[in-house]
Amino acid sequence: MYPTIILELIDDLKKLPGIGEKTAERLALHLTNWDSEDLKHFGTHLIELKTNISFCDICGLLTDDHICSICKDETKDKTQIMVVSDSKDVFAIEKTKTFHGNYHVLNGLIDFSKGIEPKDLNFDKLTNRVKDIKEIIIATNSNVEGELTAQYIKSLYKDLDLTISRLGYGLPVGADLKYADQLTLTKAVENRQKY
Amino acid sequence: MYPTIILELIDDLKKLPGIGEKTAERLALHLTNWDSEDLKHFGTHLIELKTNISFCDICGLLTDDHICSICKDETKDKTQIMVVSDSKDVFAIEKTKTFHGNYHVLNGLIDFSKGIEPKDLNFDKLTNRVKDIKEIIIATNSNVEGELTAQYIKSLYKDLDLTISRLGYGLPVGADLKYADQLTLTKAVENRQKY
Repeated sequence: MYPTIILELIDDLKKLPGIGEKTAERLALHLTNWDSEDLKHFGTHLIELKTNISFCDICGLLTDDHICSICKDETKDKTQIMVVSDSKDVFAIEKTKTFHGNYHVLNGLIDFSKGIEPKDLNFDKLTNRVKDIKEIIIATNSNVEGELTAQYIKSLYKDLDLTISRLGYGLPVGADLKYADQLTLTKAVENRQKY
Repeated sequence: MYPTIILELIDDLKKLPGIGEKTAERLALHLTNWDSEDLKHFGTHLIELKTNISFCDICGLLTDDHICSICKDETKDKTQIMVVSDSKDVFAIEKTKTFHGNYHVLNGLIDFSKGIEPKDLNFDKLTNRVKDIKEIIIATNSNVEGELTAQYIKSLYKDLDLTISRLGYGLPVGADLKYADQLTLTKAVENRQKY
Protein backbone atom coordinates (compact mmCIF):
# COMPACT_ATOMS: atom_id res chain seq x y z
CA MET A 1 0.00 0.00 0.00
CA TYR A 2 2.54 2.60 1.14
CA PRO A 3 5.59 3.17 -1.08
CA THR A 4 8.50 0.98 0.14
CA ILE A 5 10.59 3.89 1.42
CA ILE A 6 7.69 5.07 3.60
CA LEU A 7 7.33 1.56 5.06
CA GLU A 8 11.06 1.59 5.81
CA LEU A 9 10.80 5.00 7.48
CA ILE A 10 7.87 3.75 9.58
CA ASP A 11 10.08 0.86 10.74
CA ASP A 12 12.90 3.28 11.62
CA LEU A 13 10.61 5.60 13.55
CA LYS A 14 9.02 2.72 15.48
CA LYS A 15 12.41 2.02 17.08
CA LEU A 16 12.18 5.33 18.94
CA PRO A 17 10.81 5.22 22.50
CA GLY A 18 7.10 6.03 22.86
CA ILE A 19 6.48 5.87 19.11
CA GLY A 20 4.07 3.12 18.06
CA GLU A 21 2.81 2.01 14.65
CA LYS A 22 0.21 4.80 14.30
CA THR A 23 2.49 7.65 15.35
CA ALA A 24 5.30 6.30 13.15
CA GLU A 25 2.90 6.30 10.18
CA ARG A 26 1.80 9.84 10.91
CA LEU A 27 5.41 11.06 11.25
CA ALA A 28 6.57 9.26 8.08
CA LEU A 29 3.74 10.80 6.05
CA HIS A 30 4.55 14.19 7.56
CA LEU A 31 8.17 13.79 6.45
CA THR A 32 7.01 13.46 2.83
CA ASN A 33 5.97 17.14 3.10
CA TRP A 34 9.43 18.31 4.21
CA ASP A 35 11.62 19.89 1.58
CA SER A 36 14.63 17.91 0.37
CA GLU A 37 17.11 20.23 2.08
CA ASP A 38 15.60 19.67 5.54
CA LEU A 39 15.44 15.91 4.96
CA LYS A 40 19.09 15.93 3.91
CA HIS A 41 20.11 17.79 7.08
CA PHE A 42 18.12 15.44 9.32
CA GLY A 43 19.48 12.35 7.54
CA THR A 44 23.07 13.59 7.61
CA HIS A 45 22.88 14.38 11.32
CA LEU A 46 21.71 10.81 11.98
CA ILE A 47 24.41 9.25 9.82
CA GLU A 48 27.16 11.41 11.33
CA LEU A 49 25.88 11.20 14.91
CA LYS A 50 28.27 8.46 16.04
CA THR A 51 31.33 9.94 14.37
CA ASN A 52 30.65 13.40 15.81
CA ILE A 53 30.25 12.39 19.42
CA SER A 54 32.67 10.70 21.75
CA PHE A 55 33.06 10.27 25.48
CA CYS A 56 35.07 12.77 27.51
CA ASP A 57 38.55 11.39 28.28
CA ILE A 58 38.22 12.56 31.88
CA CYS A 59 34.62 11.99 32.96
CA GLY A 60 33.00 9.85 30.23
CA LEU A 61 30.33 12.42 29.28
CA LEU A 62 29.02 12.59 25.70
CA THR A 63 30.94 15.37 23.99
CA ASP A 64 32.16 16.52 20.58
CA ASP A 65 35.71 17.05 21.84
CA HIS A 66 38.31 15.00 23.73
CA ILE A 67 37.49 16.84 26.94
CA CYS A 68 33.90 17.93 27.68
CA SER A 69 32.90 21.52 28.42
CA ILE A 70 32.26 20.74 32.10
CA CYS A 71 35.72 19.26 32.70
CA LYS A 72 37.23 22.25 30.87
CA ASP A 73 35.22 24.71 32.98
CA GLU A 74 37.59 26.26 35.54
CA THR A 75 34.72 27.69 37.60
CA LYS A 76 33.50 24.19 38.56
CA ASP A 77 34.32 22.92 42.04
CA LYS A 78 36.99 20.28 41.33
CA THR A 79 36.68 18.80 44.83
CA GLN A 80 33.24 17.32 44.20
CA ILE A 81 32.36 14.56 41.75
CA MET A 82 28.81 13.44 41.12
CA VAL A 83 28.71 9.88 39.79
CA VAL A 84 25.87 9.09 37.36
CA SER A 85 25.08 6.16 35.10
CA ASP A 86 24.35 8.13 31.96
CA SER A 87 25.13 11.42 30.16
CA LYS A 88 21.41 12.22 30.20
CA ASP A 89 21.57 12.48 34.00
CA VAL A 90 24.32 15.11 33.72
CA PHE A 91 22.27 17.17 31.26
CA ALA A 92 19.25 16.96 33.61
CA ILE A 93 21.22 18.02 36.70
CA GLU A 94 23.08 20.81 34.87
CA LYS A 95 19.73 22.33 33.89
CA THR A 96 18.79 22.74 37.55
CA LYS A 97 21.96 24.85 38.13
CA THR A 98 22.10 23.51 41.71
CA PHE A 99 25.32 21.53 41.47
CA HIS A 100 28.60 23.25 40.77
CA GLY A 101 31.04 20.37 40.92
CA ASN A 102 32.25 17.89 38.32
CA TYR A 103 30.70 14.65 37.13
CA HIS A 104 31.71 11.13 36.35
CA VAL A 105 29.61 9.10 33.92
CA LEU A 106 29.80 5.32 34.39
CA ASN A 107 27.99 4.70 31.09
CA GLY A 108 25.94 1.91 32.61
CA LEU A 109 25.16 0.26 35.94
CA ILE A 110 26.33 -3.01 37.45
CA ASP A 111 23.83 -5.67 36.36
CA PHE A 112 24.96 -9.26 36.85
CA SER A 113 21.84 -10.57 35.12
CA LYS A 114 23.11 -8.92 31.93
CA GLY A 115 26.74 -9.75 32.67
CA ILE A 116 27.65 -6.12 33.32
CA GLU A 117 30.43 -6.09 35.91
CA PRO A 118 32.39 -3.15 37.35
CA LYS A 119 35.20 -3.79 34.84
CA ASP A 120 32.76 -3.01 32.02
CA LEU A 121 32.00 0.43 33.43
CA ASN A 122 34.00 3.66 33.61
CA PHE A 123 35.49 2.95 37.06
CA ASP A 124 39.25 3.00 36.39
CA LYS A 125 39.21 6.70 35.52
CA LEU A 126 37.02 7.42 38.54
CA THR A 127 39.52 5.71 40.84
CA ASN A 128 42.26 7.92 39.42
CA ARG A 129 40.17 11.04 39.95
CA VAL A 130 38.97 10.44 43.51
CA LYS A 131 42.50 10.80 44.95
CA ASP A 132 42.27 14.59 44.82
CA ILE A 133 38.67 15.24 45.81
CA LYS A 134 36.67 15.81 48.99
CA GLU A 135 33.24 14.42 48.14
CA ILE A 136 31.64 11.82 45.91
CA ILE A 137 27.89 12.26 45.39
CA ILE A 138 26.34 9.03 44.15
CA ALA A 139 23.44 9.84 41.84
CA THR A 140 22.57 6.44 40.37
CA ASN A 141 18.87 5.64 40.09
CA SER A 142 17.09 3.99 42.99
CA ASN A 143 16.40 0.71 41.20
CA VAL A 144 18.19 -2.59 41.94
CA GLU A 145 21.10 -1.88 39.58
CA GLY A 146 21.44 1.70 40.82
CA GLU A 147 21.49 0.58 44.45
CA LEU A 148 23.98 -2.19 43.72
CA THR A 149 26.27 0.23 41.90
CA ALA A 150 25.96 2.75 44.75
CA GLN A 151 26.95 0.04 47.28
CA TYR A 152 29.90 -0.91 45.09
CA ILE A 153 31.14 2.70 44.87
CA LYS A 154 30.77 3.08 48.63
CA SER A 155 32.80 -0.09 49.33
CA LEU A 156 35.42 0.82 46.72
CA TYR A 157 36.35 4.17 48.28
CA LYS A 158 35.44 3.60 51.94
CA ASP A 159 39.07 3.75 53.11
CA LEU A 160 39.78 7.05 51.39
CA ASP A 161 39.58 10.37 53.23
CA LEU A 162 36.47 11.66 51.46
CA THR A 163 32.76 12.10 52.05
CA ILE A 164 30.53 9.70 50.14
CA SER A 165 26.94 10.93 49.85
CA ARG A 166 23.87 9.88 47.90
CA LEU A 167 21.12 12.04 46.38
CA GLY A 168 18.24 12.64 48.78
CA TYR A 169 15.06 10.65 48.20
CA GLY A 170 11.58 11.77 49.13
CA LEU A 171 8.34 13.03 47.68
CA PRO A 172 8.71 14.75 44.31
CA VAL A 173 7.91 18.46 44.64
CA GLY A 174 4.24 19.08 43.89
CA ALA A 175 3.37 15.38 44.15
CA ASP A 176 0.24 14.20 45.88
CA LEU A 177 1.10 12.11 48.94
CA LYS A 178 -1.66 9.58 48.34
CA TYR A 179 -0.35 8.72 44.88
CA ALA A 180 3.27 8.23 45.96
CA ASP A 181 4.60 4.67 45.85
CA GLN A 182 5.44 2.95 49.14
CA LEU A 183 9.20 3.06 48.72
CA THR A 184 9.17 6.80 48.00
CA LEU A 185 6.90 7.37 51.00
CA THR A 186 9.18 5.28 53.24
CA LYS A 187 12.18 7.33 52.08
CA ALA A 188 10.23 10.56 52.63
CA VAL A 189 9.54 9.57 56.24
CA GLU A 190 13.13 8.46 56.85
CA ASN A 191 14.52 11.63 55.29
CA ARG A 192 12.15 13.98 57.10
CA GLN A 193 13.68 17.35 58.00
CA LYS A 194 13.25 19.78 60.87
CA TYR A 195 10.68 22.39 59.94
CA MET B 1 26.02 21.86 26.97
CA TYR B 2 24.94 19.14 24.52
CA PRO B 3 27.39 18.26 21.72
CA THR B 4 26.54 20.30 18.59
CA ILE B 5 25.28 17.33 16.57
CA ILE B 6 22.79 16.47 19.32
CA LEU B 7 21.53 20.07 19.35
CA GLU B 8 21.09 19.84 15.58
CA LEU B 9 19.19 16.55 15.90
CA ILE B 10 16.93 18.10 18.55
CA ASP B 11 16.15 20.91 16.08
CA ASP B 12 15.37 18.36 13.34
CA LEU B 13 13.09 16.30 15.59
CA LYS B 14 11.21 19.40 16.83
CA LYS B 15 9.96 19.97 13.28
CA LEU B 16 7.87 16.80 13.54
CA PRO B 17 4.22 17.21 14.60
CA GLY B 18 3.52 16.63 18.29
CA ILE B 19 7.20 16.63 19.23
CA GLY B 20 8.22 19.45 21.55
CA GLU B 21 11.56 20.44 23.03
CA LYS B 22 11.54 17.82 25.81
CA THR B 23 10.50 14.89 23.62
CA ALA B 24 13.01 15.93 20.94
CA GLU B 25 15.76 15.91 23.58
CA ARG B 26 14.73 12.49 24.83
CA LEU B 27 14.62 11.08 21.28
CA ALA B 28 17.97 12.63 20.30
CA LEU B 29 19.66 11.16 23.36
CA HIS B 30 18.01 7.81 22.65
CA LEU B 31 19.44 7.90 19.12
CA THR B 32 22.96 8.11 20.57
CA ASN B 33 22.38 4.52 21.80
CA TRP B 34 21.50 3.18 18.34
CA ASP B 35 24.19 1.32 16.50
CA SER B 36 25.78 3.02 13.48
CA GLU B 37 24.14 0.65 11.01
CA ASP B 38 20.60 1.52 12.17
CA LEU B 39 21.40 5.24 12.15
CA LYS B 40 22.76 4.92 8.62
CA HIS B 41 19.58 3.20 7.43
CA PHE B 42 17.33 5.78 9.06
CA GLY B 43 19.40 8.67 7.69
CA THR B 44 19.57 7.22 4.19
CA HIS B 45 15.80 6.67 4.11
CA LEU B 46 15.28 10.33 4.99
CA ILE B 47 17.76 11.59 2.41
CA GLU B 48 16.34 9.35 -0.33
CA LEU B 49 12.69 9.86 0.61
CA LYS B 50 11.96 12.51 -2.01
CA THR B 51 13.78 10.75 -4.84
CA ASN B 52 12.06 7.44 -4.08
CA ILE B 53 8.50 8.69 -4.07
CA SER B 54 6.50 10.40 -6.74
CA PHE B 55 2.85 11.05 -7.51
CA CYS B 56 0.85 8.55 -9.58
CA ASP B 57 0.46 9.77 -13.19
CA ILE B 58 -3.22 8.82 -13.10
CA CYS B 59 -4.57 9.67 -9.64
CA GLY B 60 -1.88 11.74 -7.90
CA LEU B 61 -1.31 9.27 -5.04
CA LEU B 62 2.13 8.98 -3.39
CA THR B 63 3.82 5.99 -5.00
CA ASP B 64 7.24 4.57 -5.83
CA ASP B 65 6.28 3.94 -9.45
CA HIS B 66 4.74 5.94 -12.33
CA ILE B 67 1.37 4.33 -11.71
CA CYS B 68 0.26 3.50 -8.15
CA SER B 69 -0.77 0.02 -7.01
CA ILE B 70 -4.45 1.03 -6.76
CA CYS B 71 -4.66 2.34 -10.34
CA LYS B 72 -2.90 -0.83 -11.51
CA ASP B 73 -5.32 -3.06 -9.57
CA GLU B 74 -7.73 -4.61 -12.09
CA THR B 75 -10.13 -5.76 -9.33
CA LYS B 76 -10.98 -2.14 -8.40
CA ASP B 77 -14.29 -0.73 -9.60
CA LYS B 78 -13.19 1.70 -12.33
CA THR B 79 -16.62 3.40 -12.43
CA GLN B 80 -16.18 5.03 -9.00
CA ILE B 81 -13.68 7.72 -8.06
CA MET B 82 -13.28 9.00 -4.52
CA VAL B 83 -11.75 12.49 -4.49
CA VAL B 84 -9.53 13.29 -1.49
CA SER B 85 -7.19 16.14 -0.65
CA ASP B 86 -4.24 14.06 0.46
CA SER B 87 -2.58 10.64 0.02
CA LYS B 88 -2.98 10.04 3.76
CA ASP B 89 -6.75 9.99 3.26
CA VAL B 90 -6.41 7.20 0.69
CA PHE B 91 -4.27 5.13 3.04
CA ALA B 92 -6.84 5.64 5.83
CA ILE B 93 -9.82 4.63 3.66
CA GLU B 94 -8.02 1.64 2.12
CA LYS B 95 -7.43 0.26 5.61
CA THR B 96 -11.18 0.11 6.24
CA LYS B 97 -11.58 -2.12 3.16
CA THR B 98 -15.07 -0.62 2.63
CA PHE B 99 -14.42 1.17 -0.66
CA HIS B 100 -13.54 -0.78 -3.77
CA GLY B 101 -13.29 1.94 -6.37
CA ASN B 102 -10.46 4.22 -7.47
CA TYR B 103 -9.21 7.46 -5.99
CA HIS B 104 -8.14 10.88 -7.11
CA VAL B 105 -5.78 12.90 -4.92
CA LEU B 106 -6.02 16.67 -5.34
CA ASN B 107 -2.85 17.22 -3.26
CA GLY B 108 -4.40 20.21 -1.52
CA LEU B 109 -7.67 22.07 -1.12
CA ILE B 110 -8.89 25.34 -2.58
CA ASP B 111 -7.86 28.09 -0.15
CA PHE B 112 -8.05 31.63 -1.50
CA SER B 113 -6.52 33.03 1.72
CA LYS B 114 -3.34 31.12 0.83
CA GLY B 115 -3.72 31.79 -2.88
CA ILE B 116 -4.49 28.13 -3.68
CA GLU B 117 -6.83 28.10 -6.67
CA PRO B 118 -8.28 25.14 -8.63
CA LYS B 119 -5.49 25.49 -11.23
CA ASP B 120 -2.94 24.70 -8.49
CA LEU B 121 -4.61 21.39 -7.71
CA ASN B 122 -4.78 18.06 -9.53
CA PHE B 123 -8.06 18.86 -11.36
CA ASP B 124 -7.05 18.54 -15.05
CA LYS B 125 -6.42 14.81 -14.73
CA LEU B 126 -9.66 14.40 -12.79
CA THR B 127 -11.64 16.06 -15.57
CA ASN B 128 -10.11 13.62 -18.05
CA ARG B 129 -11.00 10.67 -15.87
CA VAL B 130 -14.62 11.53 -15.04
CA LYS B 131 -15.76 11.03 -18.65
CA ASP B 132 -15.88 7.27 -18.21
CA ILE B 133 -17.20 6.92 -14.68
CA LYS B 134 -20.57 6.60 -12.93
CA GLU B 135 -19.94 8.13 -9.52
CA ILE B 136 -17.70 10.70 -7.85
CA ILE B 137 -17.54 10.44 -4.06
CA ILE B 138 -16.25 13.69 -2.58
CA ALA B 139 -14.23 12.93 0.56
CA THR B 140 -12.66 16.29 1.37
CA ASN B 141 -12.65 17.28 5.04
CA SER B 142 -15.61 19.19 6.47
CA ASN B 143 -13.69 22.40 7.16
CA VAL B 144 -14.08 25.62 5.15
CA GLU B 145 -11.53 24.64 2.48
CA GLY B 146 -12.94 21.13 2.21
CA GLU B 147 -16.50 22.41 1.77
CA LEU B 148 -15.39 25.00 -0.77
CA THR B 149 -13.51 22.36 -2.76
CA ALA B 150 -16.52 20.01 -2.57
CA GLN B 151 -18.80 22.78 -3.92
CA TYR B 152 -16.32 23.45 -6.72
CA ILE B 153 -16.19 19.79 -7.75
CA LYS B 154 -20.01 19.62 -7.72
CA SER B 155 -20.35 22.69 -9.96
CA LEU B 156 -17.56 21.50 -12.29
CA TYR B 157 -19.23 18.20 -13.17
CA LYS B 158 -22.91 19.01 -12.63
CA ASP B 159 -23.75 18.71 -16.34
CA LEU B 160 -22.19 15.27 -16.72
CA ASP B 161 -24.21 12.09 -16.51
CA LEU B 162 -22.80 10.88 -13.18
CA THR B 163 -23.73 10.68 -9.53
CA ILE B 164 -21.88 13.09 -7.26
CA SER B 165 -21.96 12.06 -3.60
CA ARG B 166 -20.25 13.17 -0.42
CA LEU B 167 -19.08 11.10 2.58
CA GLY B 168 -21.74 10.80 5.28
CA TYR B 169 -21.31 12.93 8.38
CA GLY B 170 -22.61 12.12 11.83
CA LEU B 171 -21.49 11.00 15.25
CA PRO B 172 -18.22 9.08 15.25
CA VAL B 173 -18.80 5.44 16.23
CA GLY B 174 -18.34 5.02 19.99
CA ALA B 175 -18.48 8.78 20.61
CA ASP B 176 -20.38 10.25 23.53
CA LEU B 177 -23.26 12.43 22.30
CA LYS B 178 -22.73 15.10 24.95
CA TYR B 179 -19.14 15.70 23.87
CA ALA B 180 -19.91 16.02 20.15
CA ASP B 181 -19.54 19.47 18.63
CA GLN B 182 -22.64 21.30 17.41
CA LEU B 183 -21.93 20.92 13.72
CA THR B 184 -21.43 17.17 14.03
CA LEU B 185 -24.61 16.88 16.08
CA THR B 186 -26.56 18.91 13.50
CA LYS B 187 -25.27 16.63 10.73
CA ALA B 188 -26.15 13.57 12.81
CA VAL B 189 -29.76 14.76 13.14
CA GLU B 190 -30.01 15.69 9.44
CA ASN B 191 -28.53 12.35 8.37
CA ARG B 192 -30.65 10.23 10.72
CA GLN B 193 -31.59 6.85 9.32
CA LYS B 194 -34.60 4.56 9.67
CA TYR B 195 -33.99 2.07 12.44
